[in-house]
Amino acid sequence: MNVGFLGLGTMGKAMAANLIKAGHTVTVWNRSPGPFAELAALGATVAKTPADAFHGDAVISMLADDASTNVIITDDLLAGAPKGIVHVNMATVSVAAARSLSERHKACGLNYVAAPVFGRAEVAVAAKLNIVAGGSDEAINSVQPLFDAMGQKTWRAGVDPAHANLVKISGNFMLAASIEMLSEAFALTEKGGVDPKLFAEIMTSTLFAAPAFKIYSEVINARRFEPAAFKLALGLKDVSLALEAGHASQTPLPMASLVRDHFLEALAAGHAEKDWSALSTIVRRNAGLAG
Amino acid sequence: MNVGFLGLGTMGKAMAANLIKAGHTVTVWNRSPGPFAELAALGATVAKTPADAFHGDAVISMLADDASTNVIITDDLLAGAPKGIVHVNMATVSVAAARSLSERHKACGLNYVAAPVFGRAEVAVAAKLNIVAGGSDEAINSVQPLFDAMGQKTWRAGVDPAHANLVKISGNFMLAASIEMLSEAFALTEKGGVDPKLFAEIMTSTLFAAPAFKIYSEVINARRFEPAAFKLALGLKDVSLALEAGHASQTPLPMASLVRDHFLEALAAGHAEKDWSALSTIVRRNAGLAG
Amino acid sequence: MNVGFLGLGTMGKAMAANLIKAGHTVTVWNRSPGPFAELAALGATVAKTPADAFHGDAVISMLADDASTNVIITDDLLAGAPKGIVHVNMATVSVAAARSLSERHKACGLNYVAAPVFGRAEVAVAAKLNIVAGGSDEAINSVQPLFDAMGQKTWRAGVDPAHANLVKISGNFMLAASIEMLSEAFALTEKGGVDPKLFAEIMTSTLFAAPAFKIYSEVINARRFEPAAFKLALGLKDVSLALEAGHASQTPLPMASLVRDHFLEALAAGHAEKDWSALSTIVRRNAGLAG
Amino acid sequence: MNVGFLGLGTMGKAMAANLIKAGHTVTVWNRSPGPFAELAALGATVAKTPADAFHGDAVISMLADDASTNVIITDDLLAGAPKGIVHVNMATVSVAAARSLSERHKACGLNYVAAPVFGRAEVAVAAKLNIVAGGSDEAINSVQPLFDAMGQKTWRAGVDPAHANLVKISGNFMLAASIEMLSEAFALTEKGGVDPKLFAEIMTSTLFAAPAFKIYSEVINARRFEPAAFKLALGLKDVSLALEAGHASQTPLPMASLVRDHFLEALAAGHAEKDWSALSTIVRRNAGLAG
Repeated sequence: MNVGFLGLGTMGKAMAANLIKAGHTVTVWNRSPGPFAELAALGATVAKTPADAFHGDAVISMLADDASTNVIITDDLLAGAPKGIVHVNMATVSVAAARSLSERHKACGLNYVAAPVFGRAEVAVAAKLNIVAGGSDEAINSVQPLFDAMGQKTWRAGVDPAHANLVKISGNFMLAASIEMLSEAFALTEKGGVDPKLFAEIMTSTLFAAPAFKIYSEVINARRFEPAAFKLALGLKDVSLALEAGHASQTPLPMASLVRDHFLEALAAGHAEKDWSALSTIVRRNAGLAG
Repeated sequence: MNVGFLGLGTMGKAMAANLIKAGHTVTVWNRSPGPFAELAALGATVAKTPADAFHGDAVISMLADDASTNVIITDDLLAGAPKGIVHVNMATVSVAAARSLSERHKACGLNYVAAPVFGRAEVAVAAKLNIVAGGSDEAINSVQPLFDAMGQKTWRAGVDPAHANLVKISGNFMLAASIEMLSEAFALTEKGGVDPKLFAEIMTSTLFAAPAFKIYSEVINARRFEPAAFKLALGLKDVSLALEAGHASQTPLPMASLVRDHFLEALAAGHAEKDWSALSTIVRRNAGLAG
Repeated sequence: MNVGFLGLGTMGKAMAANLIKAGHTVTVWNRSPGPFAELAALGATVAKTPADAFHGDAVISMLADDASTNVIITDDLLAGAPKGIVHVNMATVSVAAARSLSERHKACGLNYVAAPVFGRAEVAVAAKLNIVAGGSDEAINSVQPLFDAMGQKTWRAGVDPAHANLVKISGNFMLAASIEMLSEAFALTEKGGVDPKLFAEIMTSTLFAAPAFKIYSEVINARRFEPAAFKLALGLKDVSLALEAGHASQTPLPMASLVRDHFLEALAAGHAEKDWSALSTIVRRNAGLAG
Repeated sequence: MNVGFLGLGTMGKAMAANLIKAGHTVTVWNRSPGPFAELAALGATVAKTPADAFHGDAVISMLADDASTNVIITDDLLAGAPKGIVHVNMATVSVAAARSLSERHKACGLNYVAAPVFGRAEVAVAAKLNIVAGGSDEAINSVQPLFDAMGQKTWRAGVDPAHANLVKISGNFMLAASIEMLSEAFALTEKGGVDPKLFAEIMTSTLFAAPAFKIYSEVINARRFEPAAFKLALGLKDVSLALEAGHASQTPLPMASLVRDHFLEALAAGHAEKDWSALSTIVRRNAGLAG
């Protein structure tokens, strides 16, 4: 397929590269030129403006957040886009932003698919992402070959694109809560004289034998927070998106509130650029544990 | 082996039966005579008093909580027990109770092993429990054949029996926190128009693909809280044990505090005898969701 | 003085009336015409547009929130305003909105004073408001006669208008937290068999002999939530403003998070239009108390 | 009156001295002899054992907590006490302990009055305590002259002595929550550039014009945590008593849970012996504020 790609951060660059490797024709754009050389070497065409990449069979965007998405995906861009094109927004944006984007595309005769992903950078590189797609079946079907090149499985969240974002946001809330949960359990065992690694081994070999718990138990107990696979400041952003969605739908989420407060403690302590599992540093400090 | 067994609740009865089936000679005692006939039919000898069962190669107890344990395991009982016998306490008792029991046994020349288990009733029946054993290697080795008859694996938590209880309590805190986490995520998705079953399927097929999340997602979304596999009142007890242990070691556990408050809400709403996953009923009510 | 007044809700209407009674010449504007007749009868001139009221020595606005303020106080309005006029915004807006408004006024050569107030409707009627003013001393001095006509005291929060809003927001957080605190204490005493009115009398006659505690103890124990002196939905808005300000400055506010979650529970239970002290209804329900 | 007095800590010593000054005949006992000389100089008789002081018209105890009360107030002591004597326990003990003590006294033909007090050391010295008395009217009437010598007012909490303790515990929960509330509000204003002392002045001159807020605003902003007027470890004890009472009556107290967790953080950070308002140190640290 002939596809544009906007936003070449760690995730976007890996995803665009996998599209090229799968044989798709890819035109890339990014705010800063850093990733261009590497992708051009693989065969990508480099666009000078977002509009230059917003054509072909479909365009994918992987921009940082609501604000940067709205700065790039302007009304002018949408008005000038070829009618009928499918825009697949794979970034984690808010439910409210998804609603607004969906309406703005419809008003311009464009198709909007939300397709946020589960998976950290190394998962994106391995083309093993789990993709949660929301939008019309027809639009999703048309871009399925692109999803197949980037992910291991596509989950359909329904025809409302915002539903896919809600799934992503709710899932990230669960990950953040799991980091807090593990951190508290490890602090409790360590202060009681039990090696948290032994405790983690028992738990992740039995009831909690899940990737989320294996990965974060290992990272937390090794305190390997740099380089960040997912920055703590972004973790706060995502938990805040869950709280916003809960506010809008009148759903109290006290566990998300707790995690948000701890992320703020972590920011105040200077951990914004570390991996979000550095939340455990705060739990340890609060328990009087060093390091 | 020749073994006594005190406490024949749902768990204890299944565990004693598995010992008999594995060829051990078992003398059972229980406060009420309900389970006697079934176990006698399998070949158990029924004791009239705890002391009558407190002999042989080892004695196992599976009593409800700290209070009932201390009522049965009296100083007189320990003073009259054969020197060198190994008492394996498989119940979930507090860290403080474990410390005290351990000292009282030592003072009487007896061996004390704490061996709490992970696994609900059906797991006990299937002899698939995960057993966390704390105590001297010699004592644990001597009762390993009994563990093998009841569980799928024995995890060694160190020579301090209380450490095994701390592992169990910390693990149960994680389970309770997971129930709260799932309940909040399901409420958020449902109120946003996403089927929580679809969300659960995505999560438990990917990052949260572990028994804890599969079991409780299924139970919560089916709202199948009766009969209780583990009563909510006992869930509150276990989270309170985690908070007590945290208090003693100066470890704040805000997530445990949150779950405890919700368990209290559930008790006040009349759910004490339901499964502890009925915690989700409270989360749903608080979000304005019916049923 | 010759003064415009934008926004004639319960508070605004009472404040404008007091300005007229004190001898000032007042031109009023409101989105809906409901309050016009009453104020015209007192001597007010009714403006057809916000711009028609945005002239004279000063203009006061008392609009509902950030959104409605920004809809009325447009760039066109400010560009067309007489240079040097002082705009006194007495509504509770966010710290971020205050910063933005302050800059937008400066760019148009206008003076911006933030002057949020403490006091419910009956306090506004009695001209007994506590006014917290932020802005240049010169600007505040010039409108002091207006403040004197509406309030019992003006507190100076410094030259940055946003500081006045932060004081107001922090104060409203304290009020909301006090409502939660009283509600929990009353639930605890009532469930233990002690009359919460007796408990309230002891507390508010001694350590807690403050208006906030006397007023809300009385309202909560009488369960007199309608008509609302301050609507619960607005209470949620103000606690959210505190959390936003805390987010921006990396200040975790776990007590505000807790209160926010309870306000959301109250909204989900249908109490949005009741007085914000109806938060106690949720605390009572969660404790299993009726009514 | 002829009165015994058990427990001469900071509070007890001041209270006993005021009894002597008011003309009562006082026999004092304490575990350690430190306070004897000073009270003997005022005219007190020093008893060698608790039993030696447990006679006369009434006996007052002011012991540290449940445990020390139960160690001193033994069954033997009560069995040997003169029938009909009134024992006034003015310490802060748990609701459960109050219930048990009340029953044990009744079984020995003795009168038990619970009379916990509000007021720190300087208030005790000034004989300005607020006394909350629970017990039979007859018993309370008989010791009213003693209360008049120690306090400014006696509040009657009903005939169940435990009710007085519940009032005291609920009141101390409110004080602890107020310390947290002030600490959060001060952190929010300080990080936003507003002097917390100015904010405190506005609040405590208006809606929060009460001793609790004036005292603790002043202490927190001056960071004058030593010497402790009321130790942080005792604050944790009292909040734990509130949570225990809430557990027993199925009353969730999330605000108390939050404060308890922060007290634990403070203990883990080494502040046990400081004033309980040093809780604010934790709130400041969590917000990234120094000192």
